[in-house]
Amino acid sequence: MAMYVLVHGSWHDGPLWGPVAEQLRAAGHEVHTPTIAGHGNGVPKDVDHDDCVASIVDFVVEHDLSGFVLLGHSFGGTVIARVAEEIPERIERLIFWNAFVPQPGNSLMDEVPPHYREMFAGLAAASEDNTVPMPFPVWRDAFIQDADLELAQSTHAQLSTEPFTPFTDKLDLQRFYALDIPKSYINATEDTALPQGEWGWHPRMSGRLGAFRLVQLPGSHEVMFTNPALLAAKIVEAGRP
Amino acid sequence: MAMYVLVHGSWHDGPLWGPVAEQLRAAGHEVHTPTIAGHGNGVPKDVDHDDCVASIVDFVVEHDLSGFVLLGHSFGGTVIARVAEEIPERIERLIFWNAFVPQPGNSLMDEVPPHYREMFAGLAAASEDNTVPMPFPVWRDAFIQDADLELAQSTHAQLSTEPFTPFTDKLDLQRFYALDIPKSYINATEDTALPQGEWGWHPRMSGRLGAFRLVQLPGSHEVMFTNPALLAAKIVEAGRP
Amino acid sequence: MAMYVLVHGSWHDGPLWGPVAEQLRAAGHEVHTPTIAGHGNGVPKDVDHDDCVASIVDFVVEHDLSGFVLLGHSFGGTVIARVAEEIPERIERLIFWNAFVPQPGNSLMDEVPPHYREMFAGLAAASEDNTVPMPFPVWRDAFIQDADLELAQSTHAQLSTEPFTPFTDKLDLQRFYALDIPKSYINATEDTALPQGEWGWHPRMSGRLGAFRLVQLPGSHEVMFTNPALLAAKIVEAGRP
Repeated sequence: MAMYVLVHGSWHDGPLWGPVAEQLRAAGHEVHTPTIAGHGNGVPKDVDHDDCVASIVDFVVEHDLSGFVLLGHSFGGTVIARVAEEIPERIERLIFWNAFVPQPGNSLMDEVPPHYREMFAGLAAASEDNTVPMPFPVWRDAFIQDADLELAQSTHAQLSTEPFTPFTDKLDLQRFYALDIPKSYINATEDTALPQGEWGWHPRMSGRLGAFRLVQLPGSHEVMFTNPALLAAKIVEAGRP
Repeated sequence: MAMYVLVHGSWHDGPLWGPVAEQLRAAGHEVHTPTIAGHGNGVPKDVDHDDCVASIVDFVVEHDLSGFVLLGHSFGGTVIARVAEEIPERIERLIFWNAFVPQPGNSLMDEVPPHYREMFAGLAAASEDNTVPMPFPVWRDAFIQDADLELAQSTHAQLSTEPFTPFTDKLDLQRFYALDIPKSYINATEDTALPQGEWGWHPRMSGRLGAFRLVQLPGSHEVMFTNPALLAAKIVEAGRP
Repeated sequence: MAMYVLVHGSWHDGPLWGPVAEQLRAAGHEVHTPTIAGHGNGVPKDVDHDDCVASIVDFVVEHDLSGFVLLGHSFGGTVIARVAEEIPERIERLIFWNAFVPQPGNSLMDEVPPHYREMFAGLAAASEDNTVPMPFPVWRDAFIQDADLELAQSTHAQLSTEPFTPFTDKLDLQRFYALDIPKSYINATEDTALPQGEWGWHPRMSGRLGAFRLVQLPGSHEVMFTNPALLAAKIVEAGRP
C-alpha cells in the first residue's frame, strides 16, 4: 500500500478531499490532506506563495512523512513543485492533476489566458482583503459542468476566497526542473478550467515535465466531487511504481 | 422538464432526429425538430441562408415557443447563431453540437479546409440545381465510421441534397457575438467530419463562444444514429441549468 | 469474415500479437502475424529498411495472401506503407495503429522529437551491433503506463533489441501517397510513446493519410498487452468495409 499527500487547488481546502480520500483509504492507502496556508474559511488571507509552500513542508516534517506520492491539483501544482525543491528526498513520485507546471520565473498569472488575468485582478481589487471569490457562473459551466445543479451549488457553498498574492508571486523553479523524481500527469478530458487548446492543461503543462506518465479520465476540473471513485483509481494508476 | 428545439445539419432533415427525440421524450422533455428551408426531399432547393434562418424563426413564432434550449448540429450551428440574433428573448441556452460557429463576416465555406471547399464547389457545379450530394465514401469513413456498413448505407439512403447557396452566404453575426445567452458545446471525440487539429471543431469552433460549457462523448459526427441514447443524455447535460 | 495481416512495431516480434490474434480468431477472422526481418531474439540484426519490407512482402507472396487488411503498429507503419507500394493489389485496407506515416523522403528518425533522436543514436552507438534496447523506465512510463508493474516487467522481458539502420533509412514513399487503397487510423488516447501535441501521432501522422477512417480507444501505446480484447474490437471497426 502507498502513502498519498494530496494538495488542493484554489478556493478549496484539505477537507474537500473527503470523498477521494475515503476511496483511497478503503483501498488500504494512507492519505494526508493538509490545508494550504491562507486557504479555507476563518483564516488570515494575507499570505504569499512562500507561506503556502512552507505550510505544506511544515505539515510533512511535523508528521515525519516520507516515501509518499505528492499530488497537486490546479494551483496545487505550483505548490508541490516548490515543496519538491525543499524536501525532495521524502517524495517518491509527483502527480500533477490538471495542475500548473509554471515555466521558470513565471507566476500563476503568467500562465492563464488574458481574460482570467483580468477577471482575477478585478475581483481581487474589488475585495476588502485582496482575495478572489469564485463566481458561480464560472464554477458551474467551466469548472463543474459534469455535476447537476444541486451538486454544483452545494460544492460552491463549500468554497472559500482565494488569496491573490500567491497568484502573482514569481516562482524561480530552477531546482524543480533539475529534480529526477518520477512524475505523472492526470488529465480530466473535459477539464475547461483552463480553455482547451493553446492555453490548456495538456499537453501544454504536462509537456514541461520531461519524462512523465500520462493518465486520463473523463470529467471536469472538479471530478473529485462528480466521480471521486474514478479519480481515486486514476491516482493509484498515476502513483504506483 | 425542459423544452428542446433541435436544428439539423446539412443533408439531414427534421425527421432524422427521430431516435434522439424519442429518448428525450421518454425522459419527459418536450422536443421540436423543424426542417430547415430547402432541406429534405421533394422541396425547392433555391434557398439562401436567410431563408434557412427565417424557416426556423417562423416555426418558433408560429408555435409560440419560448424558454427552450436551441441546439444546432454541424451546419445547424450557423442557423442557430442567426436565429439567436432574431429571437434571443425566447432562448434559454444555445447548444452547438459539432457545429459551426463562424467568425463574423465568414461563410461556412470560409470555415472548412481547402479540400472540402473544392469538393463542395465541384459537386454543386456538376448538379442541375446548385446542390451538393453526400458522396457515400465520405459519409462512410469521415461522417459515420462508428456504424456498421448496413447502418451506414441505410442512413445514407435517407439523406437529401444540400443547397449550396447557404454555404457561400457571408454571415455578419456581430449581434450573435454580443448576446449573453448561456452556451454549451457538445464534442463527439471521434468526429472527423472536419479533420481534427488545425481545422477541427473543438477547440477551434467552441473557443469562439467565450464562456461555454463543454460536454464530450465518444462517437462520430453522426452519433445521433449510432448512439442516440448517449447523445440524448449529453444533450440533457449540456442543456440543464 | 476478414483476413488480417498484423505488422508489429519496434522491439516487438510477431508472436507478441498472441492475445490480440486470439481475440480476432475467436471472432472468426483469419490472422497472420509475421516477424519483420532483424526483429525478435536470436536473429541477425544487420538489416536495413528494405530488408524489413521484403520480409513482409515475401511472407504475403509465399502464403499467397490477398484481399486482406494490412495493419502496422508504430514503426510498422513505415513498413506497411512500403509494402503497399510493392503489392497494392493484394491489400483491401491499410490500418495505421499509432503508427508512423512518414513524409516523403523522411526516415523514422526525422519524425521523432529531438530527445528521442539523441537517445536512440546514443543507445545504438553504445551497442555492439548497432541496435537500440528499450530502457525499462521509458517502457514503464511512456509506453505501457496503463499496466501494473508486474505486466510492465513481464512484457519488457519479451522485447528484443531494435536494429538502428531501419530508423535512419530515408523512405521515398511517393508511390504510397498516390495509392487509393482505403485507410484507417487507430489512435489510443493515452499513447505517449510520441509525446502528445506538436510531435504526436494524431492528428499529425493520421492527417497525412488524406481521406481516412478514425477509430479511437482508451489505452497506452501497448494496449495490445493491457486490453487486447478492446484493441481487437477496434481493429475490426477500423478494418470492416
